[in-house]
Amino acid sequence: MNEPTRDWAFFDKALGVGLQLGLEVESVLFREQTEHQDLVIYQTAQWGRVMALDGIIQVCERDEFIYHEMLTHVPMLAHGAAREVCIIGGGDGGMLREALRHPVDRITMVEIDDSVVELSKTWLPGICAGAFDDPRANLVIADGARFMAATGQRFDVIIVDSTDPMGPGEVLFTSAFYGDCKARLNPGGVMTTQSGVVMIQGGELTTTVSRLGEHFVDAHGYIAAVPTYSGGFMGFGWGTDNTTLRQTSRDEIAARATAINLTTRYYNADMHGGAFALPTYIAERVEAGK
Amino acid sequence: MNEPTRDWAFFDKALGVGLQLGLEVESVLFREQTEHQDLVIYQTAQWGRVMALDGIIQVCERDEFIYHEMLTHVPMLAHGAAREVCIIGGGDGGMLREALRHPVDRITMVEIDDSVVELSKTWLPGICAGAFDDPRANLVIADGARFMAATGQRFDVIIVDSTDPMGPGEVLFTSAFYGDCKARLNPGGVMTTQSGVVMIQGGELTTTVSRLGEHFVDAHGYIAAVPTYSGGFMGFGWGTDNTTLRQTSRDEIAARATAINLTTRYYNADMHGGAFALPTYIAERVEAGK
Repeated sequence: MNEPTRDWAFFDKALGVGLQLGLEVESVLFREQTEHQDLVIYQTAQWGRVMALDGIIQVCERDEFIYHEMLTHVPMLAHGAAREVCIIGGGDGGMLREALRHPVDRITMVEIDDSVVELSKTWLPGICAGAFDDPRANLVIADGARFMAATGQRFDVIIVDSTDPMGPGEVLFTSAFYGDCKARLNPGGVMTTQSGVVMIQGGELTTTVSRLGEHFVDAHGYIAAVPTYSGGFMGFGWGTDNTTLRQTSRDEIAARATAINLTTRYYNADMHGGAFALPTYIAERVEAGK
Repeated sequence: MNEPTRDWAFFDKALGVGLQLGLEVESVLFREQTEHQDLVIYQTAQWGRVMALDGIIQVCERDEFIYHEMLTHVPMLAHGAAREVCIIGGGDGGMLREALRHPVDRITMVEIDDSVVELSKTWLPGICAGAFDDPRANLVIADGARFMAATGQRFDVIIVDSTDPMGPGEVLFTSAFYGDCKARLNPGGVMTTQSGVVMIQGGELTTTVSRLGEHFVDAHGYIAAVPTYSGGFMGFGWGTDNTTLRQTSRDEIAARATAINLTTRYYNADMHGGAFALPTYIAERVEAGK
């Protein structure tokens, strides 16, 4: 452990898109083949600590705020009154940390791999930032799809913070799972999903919007640019039956953010709407799913 | 030439930000130490052809449309009636190609390195796409800063498509150069500049906005996400004395694009305004320059 390597680690080759991202590494902090995945935690030279699963970066301390803020605050502030929230996946605790910044009653987080949670607490404490100790946080170690099919709980917002659609994460991209989410949402509820980097995994966003559209009146997509998720914009899926949510005005979003003293480094009232402004190559992927 | 390598080439290490981008390469098409720079053209496996100068990707066939559309169409359609346009740099001809899609009288393109133009025509013909043969195109091989200080021409839009602010491109980031641009703009004219990838070259956008602000009433920044310019959003500088340009409505922008049958793959009327919605970490960089 903690081998000094002063070297470079390369990621994303496994995506098969002719691209790799290299980060300068000071040491390997932890490496383990878990029951589900091959997990490595690096101390990088300039990007903080990085956790990779099967050679794909899952979380990077320097830019994780982008992904976590955008998958959480967009649905939470569009809804405006979420009290019961569900996070599927999200083992590093970053999504939980952001969701807890809203005045919720309870956040149920369902993670399949308890070792990811424990390792994140140990090696990436700045990402969960104590979130698991919040009395409103309810951590369930279970298969997210099975949980959603069986639970008697109801939610105002469901956030799907999954890995890519291969291996254990694959079931979280199915129509059946989205249907179960829909059935567990309170009236006016909304769900958001991680849907891949659009230029290199473009079919993913189309498929997500299409499958969300089988269950929701308003199925759509929005975007954020996360440096260590190589390939330009990451896409997020959006599903709700409340067609007014996306029309919430900039001023109303700003007022809601101010009311809870929300300070962020990427998300803001301008970006809330701006994230739904889609480059043509992405808009085409979204429309293809409608 | 055309050595079969079936290998990977790595870029951006020279930026010193602990990050590299690797692209799978089928062959090196061309390599030359020019008077000004070390230039290599690769045939990549999945990203088309790529031209690199001093180990930094300058243009990549697969995603060049993003950079070229956004640095051109945002000022051109905000202005709405540009007849005389100047491009500083832009040797590959992509900026010229996009600017010629507007009803202009003349586009004066000032490139310091004629070998970049010739090599681009030979090896990257899809990027200039015949633009240099357009009778409205006026190619000047000269130092852009000296040209701007001396020319008697006047322009409605000036687009600065420079390399990074080191070596020959450095002078294109100075206040003196921006002042010369301002002096050569017709009333109501606008200039835009390449200002680096914000997360890894963040001081560049602040400095650009600050120096533009020494000459223009409205100095600001906007953004686009270009996958092979690693690090998230690229920043662009914006300078004009016409404070109404940024307020042009979405519908008016859409009408202007439709009137010239503008078809694009990234830029559209939503993204025109969306590009000025800045993530907080970028908004702070822009505000620091004001």
